[in-house]
Amino acid sequence: MAMERSVPHFQEELEALKGRLLEMGGLAEERVRAAMQGLVGRDAGVIDTVLRGDEPVNQLHIDIDDRCFRLLALYQPMATDLRAIVAAVKINTDLERVGDLAVNIAEASKRYISHPPVKKLIDIPQMAEIAQTMLRDSLDAYVRRDTALAQHVLNEDDKLDSLKTEVFRELLSYMLKDPATVEPALDLILVSRHLERIGDHATNIAEDVIFMVSAVDVRHHASH
Amino acid sequence: MAMERSVPHFQEELEALKGRLLEMGGLAEERVRAAMQGLVGRDAGVIDTVLRGDEPVNQLHIDIDDRCFRLLALYQPMATDLRAIVAAVKINTDLERVGDLAVNIAEASKRYISHPPVKKLIDIPQMAEIAQTMLRDSLDAYVRRDTALAQHVLNEDDKLDSLKTEVFRELLSYMLKDPATVEPALDLILVSRHLERIGDHATNIAEDVIFMVSAVDVRHHASH
Repeated sequence: MAMERSVPHFQEELEALKGRLLEMGGLAEERVRAAMQGLVGRDAGVIDTVLRGDEPVNQLHIDIDDRCFRLLALYQPMATDLRAIVAAVKINTDLERVGDLAVNIAEASKRYISHPPVKKLIDIPQMAEIAQTMLRDSLDAYVRRDTALAQHVLNEDDKLDSLKTEVFRELLSYMLKDPATVEPALDLILVSRHLERIGDHATNIAEDVIFMVSAVDVRHHASH
Repeated sequence: MAMERSVPHFQEELEALKGRLLEMGGLAEERVRAAMQGLVGRDAGVIDTVLRGDEPVNQLHIDIDDRCFRLLALYQPMATDLRAIVAAVKINTDLERVGDLAVNIAEASKRYISHPPVKKLIDIPQMAEIAQTMLRDSLDAYVRRDTALAQHVLNEDDKLDSLKTEVFRELLSYMLKDPATVEPALDLILVSRHLERIGDHATNIAEDVIFMVSAVDVRHHASH
């Protein structure tokens, strides 16, 4: 195996890696957006495109992993560069899970729209908006090495958590009052849990960014 | 930073790293077991120990991550050794999430036991048993580089999935018949989802093992 230490090439390849991560983040976010659009617009066609289309995300997942191994093996990076690549390995996993969660949202949405609507959807689309923004910001923070933005992502997670609790309480009260709402309300609760987990993945990415830039471990200082 | 390539030291440190991963896996599994014991035995005391005690898992998570960076930076391993350490980074993340899921199970269990029992718990403890065995096997497969065992873990995931579907259908029928069961049945559904996710983490670990040993990517060949 070739073992040159070609520093300019390394930086170029690292930039290319970041580009692929942004691309994957964009794809994953787009899939979450489509699943939510299918849910809110009660559009089975849009939902089906989400259920069928996870191949591009999966291909990118493998491609990014390959790039990380290549960079580690060929250039043997140190310090911040090493942390940047290990972070990329982790972020790649997080983004793949976000893609899976889009499928989970689509599955619950498909069941949901087969029943009459339980209520006008307000909190859940708001949760989706927050989770997507967190995801985008966490990736921007990675690419720009922006710890302030990463910290902002960590702060946003509380909003998602309290919305989830609110959604749960409200839907539970519907279910208790009217058994006909049990099935669809259950699916909305599952959607809100999936959105919360997307926020968790954004949080993981933000923590990795802070560690990458400052080598300070911000994990496990508050329970999550 | 010292930059010697000391091969025997590397193997020793890699063994130590594996030992820590097994330790963390044991701790995470123990927490899942305790949460389930609290649920089945309706024991709030046991549940509270799970809710309070995630510090050791979190400390190990940071320690293992540190070891991985150290090994990458000091020894610049290649090929299988490199893949073993990148796998350790990922497995570490998976095990930390399993620890978090034990807390989620404990939270749902605590709510569950504040209501009269919905039914005798059979399928859910069975799901827990399968998920824990999958987790243990996936870690053994990592330590022993045993791809046959890793493949066995991948096969077990289907069992978990069909039990989850069965649990969901059964609990839904309770909820539809008797509104008094809505809240506790909902918590049991959440527990079954958390157990399914523990199986997902074991599956991730098994996939990493197969990639580490054979450099063959088994991910994304079936939808999951």
